[in-house]
Amino acid sequence: MTTGYFFPHRHILGIDHLTSTDIQHILSTAHSFKEISSRPIKKVPTLRGNTIINLFFEPSTRTRLSFEVAAKRMSADTFNISASTSSATKGETLIDTARNITAMNPDTIIIRHAFSGAPHMLTRYVDAAIINAGDGTHEHPSQGLLDMMTVQEHKGRLDGLKVAIIGDIAHSRVAHSNILGFSKMGSEVYVYAPATLMPPALGQLGAKVCTSLTEAVEDADVVMTLRIQKERQNDPLLPSFREYSRQYGITREIVERASPDAIIMHPGPINRGVELTPDLADCSQSVILDQVTNGVAVRMALLYLVMGNAPVGGE
Amino acid sequence: MTTGYFFPHRHILGIDHLTSTDIQHILSTAHSFKEISSRPIKKVPTLRGNTIINLFFEPSTRTRLSFEVAAKRMSADTFNISASTSSATKGETLIDTARNITAMNPDTIIIRHAFSGAPHMLTRYVDAAIINAGDGTHEHPSQGLLDMMTVQEHKGRLDGLKVAIIGDIAHSRVAHSNILGFSKMGSEVYVYAPATLMPPALGQLGAKVCTSLTEAVEDADVVMTLRIQKERQNDPLLPSFREYSRQYGITREIVERASPDAIIMHPGPINRGVELTPDLADCSQSVILDQVTNGVAVRMALLYLVMGNAPVGGE
Amino acid sequence: MTTGYFFPHRHILGIDHLTSTDIQHILSTAHSFKEISSRPIKKVPTLRGNTIINLFFEPSTRTRLSFEVAAKRMSADTFNISASTSSATKGETLIDTARNITAMNPDTIIIRHAFSGAPHMLTRYVDAAIINAGDGTHEHPSQGLLDMMTVQEHKGRLDGLKVAIIGDIAHSRVAHSNILGFSKMGSEVYVYAPATLMPPALGQLGAKVCTSLTEAVEDADVVMTLRIQKERQNDPLLPSFREYSRQYGITREIVERASPDAIIMHPGPINRGVELTPDLADCSQSVILDQVTNGVAVRMALLYLVMGNAPVGGE
Repeated sequence: MTTGYFFPHRHILGIDHLTSTDIQHILSTAHSFKEISSRPIKKVPTLRGNTIINLFFEPSTRTRLSFEVAAKRMSADTFNISASTSSATKGETLIDTARNITAMNPDTIIIRHAFSGAPHMLTRYVDAAIINAGDGTHEHPSQGLLDMMTVQEHKGRLDGLKVAIIGDIAHSRVAHSNILGFSKMGSEVYVYAPATLMPPALGQLGAKVCTSLTEAVEDADVVMTLRIQKERQNDPLLPSFREYSRQYGITREIVERASPDAIIMHPGPINRGVELTPDLADCSQSVILDQVTNGVAVRMALLYLVMGNAPVGGE
Repeated sequence: MTTGYFFPHRHILGIDHLTSTDIQHILSTAHSFKEISSRPIKKVPTLRGNTIINLFFEPSTRTRLSFEVAAKRMSADTFNISASTSSATKGETLIDTARNITAMNPDTIIIRHAFSGAPHMLTRYVDAAIINAGDGTHEHPSQGLLDMMTVQEHKGRLDGLKVAIIGDIAHSRVAHSNILGFSKMGSEVYVYAPATLMPPALGQLGAKVCTSLTEAVEDADVVMTLRIQKERQNDPLLPSFREYSRQYGITREIVERASPDAIIMHPGPINRGVELTPDLADCSQSVILDQVTNGVAVRMALLYLVMGNAPVGGE
Repeated sequence: MTTGYFFPHRHILGIDHLTSTDIQHILSTAHSFKEISSRPIKKVPTLRGNTIINLFFEPSTRTRLSFEVAAKRMSADTFNISASTSSATKGETLIDTARNITAMNPDTIIIRHAFSGAPHMLTRYVDAAIINAGDGTHEHPSQGLLDMMTVQEHKGRLDGLKVAIIGDIAHSRVAHSNILGFSKMGSEVYVYAPATLMPPALGQLGAKVCTSLTEAVEDADVVMTLRIQKERQNDPLLPSFREYSRQYGITREIVERASPDAIIMHPGPINRGVELTPDLADCSQSVILDQVTNGVAVRMALLYLVMGNAPVGGE
C-alpha cells in the first residue's frame, strides 16, 4: 500500500473522482486481497457484521455475482434487490427506495441504475457508502479498475502504453471509465467506433479519435473491444451484427498490427464472432478471464476501503 | 423484559392473538435488539444454525428485506422463495409446498400470501414456527408492532392516545393490525376512508368511524395514512389518484388540526402527492423512516421469541 | 463409511458413472450427516470458506432450495444464478458463462440445464467440481440417490427388491437415474408408462417393461409414481390428466396388489388426484416427505465428497 496515504473517499462514483494515487492504492489493495480467492478457505473476517446491499435496477449476472462473492469472502452479509422485485414497480421514487433501505442501517449500497448520475444523487440522501456498479452511459468504475489491474499485471505498468478501445464508445460506461483511468495513469487511449456511436467531445476526455481500425490498433499494447448489445439491435444508429463484425470485429489479422505482446480484453459477455473472432477469445493473448478474476479482488478492495471511511461508531 | 412472564406463542399470526402483555414484551425485546443495528459489527450469534425461510407468494421488497436483515443480524441462515420461482406455478397446493419445505427442517417460515388465513392454516401442517408477513386483507402483525414501537418511542406510551388512520381501510391488513393493536394498548383509533372502502363492521374492532377527515385528525396524536395501491387503480371502488389526494390526502393544513406534536406515519412505499404532500413525508413530524428502522428490531424480536418456544431438541 | 475406500469422483454427473460401492459410500456419508439437520444448531464448519454456485437454467424451487440448505448447513457460501437473470439471455454461450463463473474461483457448480449432457460438457472447461442437478431427459443423480437412501432406511437393504416406476418414463431423468441405481444395487425395476412415453431401448438399462399397471405393482416393495408435467399438457403424446389418472394413477386398490409393507414414493411436486389419490400421498405407507428430508442429507454428502477431491491447494 502507499505510505502515509489515507484513502479519502467515502463513495466510489466514478474514475473521474479518483486521482492516480487513489487508483494505484486501490489496485495495490486489490492485489493483496487477490490471493484470498485461491485459498482452500476463501474467507477472511474483515467485514464481518457488515450489511451490503446489491440494489440493481438493471439486470446483471456477473457484476452482481462478483460483488456478492467479494462481499461474502470478506464475511459481510449481502442482500440482493433487483428492479423486478423492487418497490420501484410500486411507484416509489429512487430516493425514497434508497432512504428506506438506509433506515435498515446498511454499510454499503452497490447500485446499478439506467440514469447517469443516480449513484451520485443518492450520496446526498443516504448515510451508507455508495458504490456505482454502472449508471447509464456514464461510468462503471469497478470495471475500469479491474481492467487497469489486469493490464498492470500483464504489462508491469500503467503508463506509457497505447490502449485501443473499439466499439460503441458513445453508450459505453466501460469505455468512459477506462478512457479516464488509463489517461490518468499516463497511457494513451485510442478509440475507434462507428461514426454514429462516437461522441463528439471525446477528445476532451483525453482519448485520440481514430478514423480506421488499423490506426487504433497499430502497435497497441492493449486491444479492448466492447460488447455490442443485442438488445439494441433495432437501434438505427447501430450497424447489423454482420456489418459490425466485418468493420469493427477484431481478427487475428488486426491483432497482428498491434504490439507482438499485446493483450486482448473484453468486458463480457462476449458475442463470439461479432466483437472478435472465437479463436481470439481463447488465445494466449486473451486476458478476458483474468479480468473476471481481478473483478472479485478489486471489489473486495473497494468494499474494504469505503468501510475504512465509515463515520466513527459505524452507521 | 417483563418479570415472571414467559412469551407463550409458537407462531405470530396476528395482533388479534396477542395480549397487551405479549405486545409490550415484544416491544421491550425489540427495543433491546435495536441497538445491534447501530453497531459497527451488526451481528450477534443468537440464532446461529437456525434455518429461516422467507416464503413470499406476493411480491415484496421491504418486508422481505427487513426480515432477511433481521435474521442475518441474528446469525441465522435465510432462504428466499418467491411465488414466481415456486412450485406453486407447477400446481402444488400450499399445504404440500409447506410440508415439503418443512421436511428440510426449517426453524421458522415467514409467509406472505394473498389468502387471508393462509398462515394460520399452515400451523396445522408444519412443525416450524410460522410468522405472518401479510395475509390477504387480514393482518400484517409485524407492521402493526413496528408501528406501535415507533409511537411508543415518540410518545413515551401507547395508552390514552388518539390515533387517526386514513385510507383504504377495507383492504388494508396494516389498518386491521393497527386497529387491534392500538385498541388493546388503550388508545382510541379513528378511521376515515372513502365510503366504498370502509368495512361495515369496523366498530366491532373498536375503531371509531369518522365522516370527515377533520373529525379523524382533530387533536390526534398520530396521523397514519395508508398506501393507495396503484395496481388497483382500475377498481371501480377506488377514486382516481387525483380525487383521492384532494379528499383523503394529508396536507399541512390537515396536520395543523392534529395535536401540535402529532407524528405522521405511513407503511410505505409512499405515493408522494397522493396519500400525503411531499413536504410532509420529509418534515420533522414524519417518523416514516423510524418505522423502517424499528421494523428490523421488531422482526429480530419475533424471530427470537418464537424460537424460544421451539419443541425441546429443536425441530 | 467403507474401509480402505477412497471416493474417486471429482464430479457427480449421473448414477451411470457410479459403482455400487460409490453409491453405498454416498448413502453412508449422507446417513451420518442427516442428524445435523435435527439439531437445534443445524450447522457444521466443514465447508467454511467454500464457494458454491447454484446455476439453474430451468426453474426449480425444491432442488435449488435443498442444495442451498445443504451447503449452508456445511457453512459454505452459496450464490444463486437463475436463467432469467443470467447472461444467457444476453447471447453468451453456456461454456462462456461457466468459464466466467469459474474465473471467480468457485469450488462447486451445481447445474440444471435443459440439454442432456450439459454438466458433462462443462467438466472439460472448468476447474470447479460439477454436480448435475438435472440435465434434460438424461439424469438427476441426487434425486436417484435420495430415493435409494429412503428405500434403504425403510427396507434395510437395496438388493432383492422389486421397484415399480409408473409414469412418463421417456422424459423422466428421475426414472433414468433410479433405473440405473436400483439395478446396480441388485434390485429389479419394473416400469409402466403410456405407450407413447415408453422409450424403446429401456430393457438395455436393466428395467422390465410391463404391459399393465398390475404387472408392474404386483408384489412390489416400492411403488414410485412420477410427476406428470402440467406444462406439457398440450403435448399430443400425453393423455389428458383425467385419462392419465384413470389408467396410470395409483389408488388404494392398486397399492393392495403390492407387498403389504410396500412404500409409496413420488419426486414431487405432486398433482394430487392425478399421479396418485390424495389419501395415498398422506398415508402411513407414503415416504414422500422422507425423500425431501433425505435430499438435504444426500446433497450435504455430495458437496462434501467432491470437495475431498479438489486439486491440492484448492481451486
